[in-house]
Amino acid sequence: MSNAIVGQSGGPTAVINSSLAGVYEAAKQRGAKHVYGMLHGVQGLLEEKYIDLSERLHSALDIELLKRTPSSYLGSCRYKLPDWRDKEGEKLYQDIFKILKKLDIGYFFYIGGNDSMDTICKLAAYGNHVGSSIRFMGVPKTIDNDLMVTDHTPGYGSAAKYIGVVMKEIIRDATVYGTKYVTIVEVMGRNAGWLTAASALAKEEDCEGVDMIALPEVTFNVDRFVEKVKRMQEEKPSVVIAVSEGVKLEDGRYVCELADDVHAVDAFGHKSLTGTARYLSNVIARSMNTKTRSIELSTLQRCAGHVSSRTDITEAYQVGGAAVKAAYEGETGKVVTLKRISNAPYQCTTEIHDISEVANLEKKVPMSWINDAHTQMKQEFIDYAKPLIQAELTPVYVSGLPRHIYLPE
Amino acid sequence: MSNAIVGQSGGPTAVINSSLAGVYEAAKQRGAKHVYGMLHGVQGLLEEKYIDLSERLHSALDIELLKRTPSSYLGSCRYKLPDWRDKEGEKLYQDIFKILKKLDIGYFFYIGGNDSMDTICKLAAYGNHVGSSIRFMGVPKTIDNDLMVTDHTPGYGSAAKYIGVVMKEIIRDATVYGTKYVTIVEVMGRNAGWLTAASALAKEEDCEGVDMIALPEVTFNVDRFVEKVKRMQEEKPSVVIAVSEGVKLEDGRYVCELADDVHAVDAFGHKSLTGTARYLSNVIARSMNTKTRSIELSTLQRCAGHVSSRTDITEAYQVGGAAVKAAYEGETGKVVTLKRISNAPYQCTTEIHDISEVANLEKKVPMSWINDAHTQMKQEFIDYAKPLIQAELTPVYVSGLPRHIYLPE
Repeated sequence: MSNAIVGQSGGPTAVINSSLAGVYEAAKQRGAKHVYGMLHGVQGLLEEKYIDLSERLHSALDIELLKRTPSSYLGSCRYKLPDWRDKEGEKLYQDIFKILKKLDIGYFFYIGGNDSMDTICKLAAYGNHVGSSIRFMGVPKTIDNDLMVTDHTPGYGSAAKYIGVVMKEIIRDATVYGTKYVTIVEVMGRNAGWLTAASALAKEEDCEGVDMIALPEVTFNVDRFVEKVKRMQEEKPSVVIAVSEGVKLEDGRYVCELADDVHAVDAFGHKSLTGTARYLSNVIARSMNTKTRSIELSTLQRCAGHVSSRTDITEAYQVGGAAVKAAYEGETGKVVTLKRISNAPYQCTTEIHDISEVANLEKKVPMSWINDAHTQMKQEFIDYAKPLIQAELTPVYVSGLPRHIYLPE
Repeated sequence: MSNAIVGQSGGPTAVINSSLAGVYEAAKQRGAKHVYGMLHGVQGLLEEKYIDLSERLHSALDIELLKRTPSSYLGSCRYKLPDWRDKEGEKLYQDIFKILKKLDIGYFFYIGGNDSMDTICKLAAYGNHVGSSIRFMGVPKTIDNDLMVTDHTPGYGSAAKYIGVVMKEIIRDATVYGTKYVTIVEVMGRNAGWLTAASALAKEEDCEGVDMIALPEVTFNVDRFVEKVKRMQEEKPSVVIAVSEGVKLEDGRYVCELADDVHAVDAFGHKSLTGTARYLSNVIARSMNTKTRSIELSTLQRCAGHVSSRTDITEAYQVGGAAVKAAYEGETGKVVTLKRISNAPYQCTTEIHDISEVANLEKKVPMSWINDAHTQMKQEFIDYAKPLIQAELTPVYVSGLPRHIYLPE
């Protein structure tokens, strides 16, 4: 039982590889002979697809590149484990534990969001059921920042910084003609508006900020939206709006469902959301005498390694290391969380919680952090989010572009 | 005749303000008492909207921030001057020259692309016609890189760098699940494919590069496109394609016109192009068993001051200064161009050309730089573009975000 294995799961972030570096280095320090990486998470593991990380990470420079490479170095999956209490389900767990035994795994780390924590929860429970000594630990990541218990999730700070940066740039660009112009920027976030809220960070002494922020926490009404935009444009010609892809109508439908595009559904039953900004921009163009533009930040916001938050990269590395420490001290079925000690100066430490407190649950933006008109974030949110975007870790630029580390297929 | 005036026109870039800084500092050095800035180009000038730049730029730090602030500090316009030989047209020129006389202007600088150079061309010709001693100089800028004569245009290098950076990140993100996935990225460029071609820069020893590049220089055929993508996906599951917003069908229609969105037309008669990637992505989704995603780089690619090319910022500053030098030496109706001395080591200098060689003309990507299959750029393009994206000028980060300088409305 001298080896460790680590996997990455769910949507990529700019710093998920920094957590991988944290797990790898801490496990090596604790004496793991081999640290394996599952390729494409448990789905790949089931097909015995894995690598020995020591054979790939040859130097301190490789570790440094890993920390600064966006997306998931090991590949990812969206794979939901069945219930192990079902007969057919149990077979799959037996397969996984057979593979883990073959690799002499004592410690199992999984870096992911709330869906991925479900995997750790089930594996730990099954391990307990069969009396396995393997320690299962969850390492949190998600740009969505929607995990319970933890103050915030690694990945959020960098995505929030990216959103702040591009909103400032979009605002500068959109005011340039001095003419009537409505820009609607679509930000990721299915049910929780943390990312869209980050657009509030653009407001500074050198920037007028976005004019409206629409979060999925607030029921969306298209007619009222148009009215608000009309009123805003009477005050200033260029109106810039940040809208979450997940805004919903009173009847529960997503706004983007009003558009006519195909909406696919993933393994967890989540609808593919896209086209909210485009739909609203078309509505505005039809109802008002103004030029409009819709901008989808799309995957750019989750893989922008070139403008990540140093605070975020550091914390992502730390939660990886803390997971290893806890596992080697005997914990299993747990997740590392971040606990904020203070805002000014910003201080944050790690804690260990039962994974059941996190798995399959979602943390939303508190309504008390949204203004009464439901158009802006209050100072409480700014105080919360501002420390998370502080400081930069410049990419290693080679010949004009950020250098990454990657596994060729 | 002791003063100078400068304006910005056309679409913003990440470095157009660096040219403004170049004009401002050189004009001050040459003894200009006041350097005025037109607000929103000649359109604003006609309404006597201008500022005295010395009253706004207080310190060397302000100049530094100006160089690193994207979009047009003075605001911009898309305004086509009438023919001064028309009776009604001449009235407008008389108005402009009256305002210039009132401000005691001896030197007039206009930073813009091929449409904006038309303005300088006409003003210089009218000035000549009425025996004015005012010197009119064009300062080139455009992310599109479609100006004749000049080796490249300031603004292109930074946009090309941005495109290289995000393509690498998009490719990392798109390969993460190891599943079938077609990503189509839409890049700006109405008739010239310089920007889309820049996606070829992503291919490096740490990146497999984009799988297909579609430029407006090559007639687009939707059926052949689908066939090519099908073949590519047989080789590798994740296919990433860069497509220009301006790709056209054999019958002359833009591909995006096949979609059903409204397409507005601007003052120069240019159709608003958007939706090409989305349209093609929907076609692929209907014809093939694959997940698809379309990403529009939209205005993000022209205002990404946070990832600009230091080479580009420096050259943008230089062309501003060179325009002032030429004007003070008596030139008028001219434009500054860039002349490449050598590729390795990269060396570039400025020249002065008649504005009529540039105004209203477009330079396209040479067909000889595109491979026979029309899917990739040849080494000639890489050798041309690579020097332009070299080196970085990090923004001045304040509290986690790049600091800009701006004129509140």
